[in-house]
Amino acid sequence: MTIRKQRRKEGIPRGVISRLPKYYRYLSGLSQAQEKISSAELGKALNMTAAQIRSDLSYFGSFGLHGYGYRVDELKNHISAILGLDREYSLVLIGAGNLGRAIASYPNFRKRGFIIKAIFDADPEVIGTELAGLTIRSIDTLEDYLQANPCDIAVITTPKEASQAVCDRICRAGIKAIWNFSPLDLRVPNDVILEHTHLTDSLLQLSFQITNNETEKSS
Amino acid sequence: MTIRKQRRKEGIPRGVISRLPKYYRYLSGLSQAQEKISSAELGKALNMTAAQIRSDLSYFGSFGLHGYGYRVDELKNHISAILGLDREYSLVLIGAGNLGRAIASYPNFRKRGFIIKAIFDADPEVIGTELAGLTIRSIDTLEDYLQANPCDIAVITTPKEASQAVCDRICRAGIKAIWNFSPLDLRVPNDVILEHTHLTDSLLQLSFQITNNETEKSS
Repeated sequence: MTIRKQRRKEGIPRGVISRLPKYYRYLSGLSQAQEKISSAELGKALNMTAAQIRSDLSYFGSFGLHGYGYRVDELKNHISAILGLDREYSLVLIGAGNLGRAIASYPNFRKRGFIIKAIFDADPEVIGTELAGLTIRSIDTLEDYLQANPCDIAVITTPKEASQAVCDRICRAGIKAIWNFSPLDLRVPNDVILEHTHLTDSLLQLSFQITNNETEKSS
Repeated sequence: MTIRKQRRKEGIPRGVISRLPKYYRYLSGLSQAQEKISSAELGKALNMTAAQIRSDLSYFGSFGLHGYGYRVDELKNHISAILGLDREYSLVLIGAGNLGRAIASYPNFRKRGFIIKAIFDADPEVIGTELAGLTIRSIDTLEDYLQANPCDIAVITTPKEASQAVCDRICRAGIKAIWNFSPLDLRVPNDVILEHTHLTDSLLQLSFQITNNETEKSS
């Protein structure tokens, strides 16, 4: 049975999936010279127990060797394939404000195979200017562009007020995956994948930990 | 026993904590007129089972009423207090590039009590200009500023090359919580809380789901 078939059959828990980028990042950062890694080492680096590591990685077939650990290259390539990083993805970015500019200029996306093909905005003063080597297009031309150039992922960095309308247009134009930065929970059809980055959530995690630490200290 | 003491004693699993912002966001978005909500309703809205909801919320004391559900106000205020949102936090932002500008202009932070007090940059062309109502300061004055104005949280939006040095300076200046956007795993002292937003991880979640969906369709 291939890994993909195995995965489809058994399903990988969402928690495990959410930790794959962390594994991938850590393994990518290791020296080329390091051939193997133990679950204990991985656990220490990623703040998890060795047992958690072994449990997570067991979903991807038994390629760890008892008393040896994992082969770094094999593990990295395997996780890369599971994450779908063995191909390129074409992206459109809608909203060339500060956040859109930051995303368009972020160096690591291209390195991982996420290529921004076109940038759209509604502001006449912005349309026609350059951003990250691309000429910003009018949002009026979005459907024409996507019909001629089908893309994999749309990134929404518009103001909150515009995001649902933009999302609806993108979905009608056939985009099947959306990365939303606007602080609004978007409604999408069932066959569209939505990833929402809530920037405020990170601050709430910080405030929780600050409050918790102070409580402990004062006890 | 107070809730805080109870929490300290028993500990809340990290998974539950990571879901609190989601609960808080959803409850905050409900109409003022809605007085109660059942675990089934919450579960449906948040894509969780009613049992998961009841299990999560049981960590915060038994304020759900059998056959009635939860009082929206009570639940929201409770989660707000646990998240530490019953006070204000002062922030400094280091790095007034695109991402820094996006963060400084993001309206929801101030609304939740996270107030950016000062913005620093190293670029002489940027220093002295205005951003989000503040005059951008020279990074050379960081320590002086923090000594005169102790702050709760530092947000790092510098380029990768500068982020560890900035982080070290911030920690020496007494900041105890850092929100890092630079694509580098920062080293911090044990008593400093670090929240790292990895923008690439969201794309990896999308590529995983795209790959997975396509595999399912082609089977």
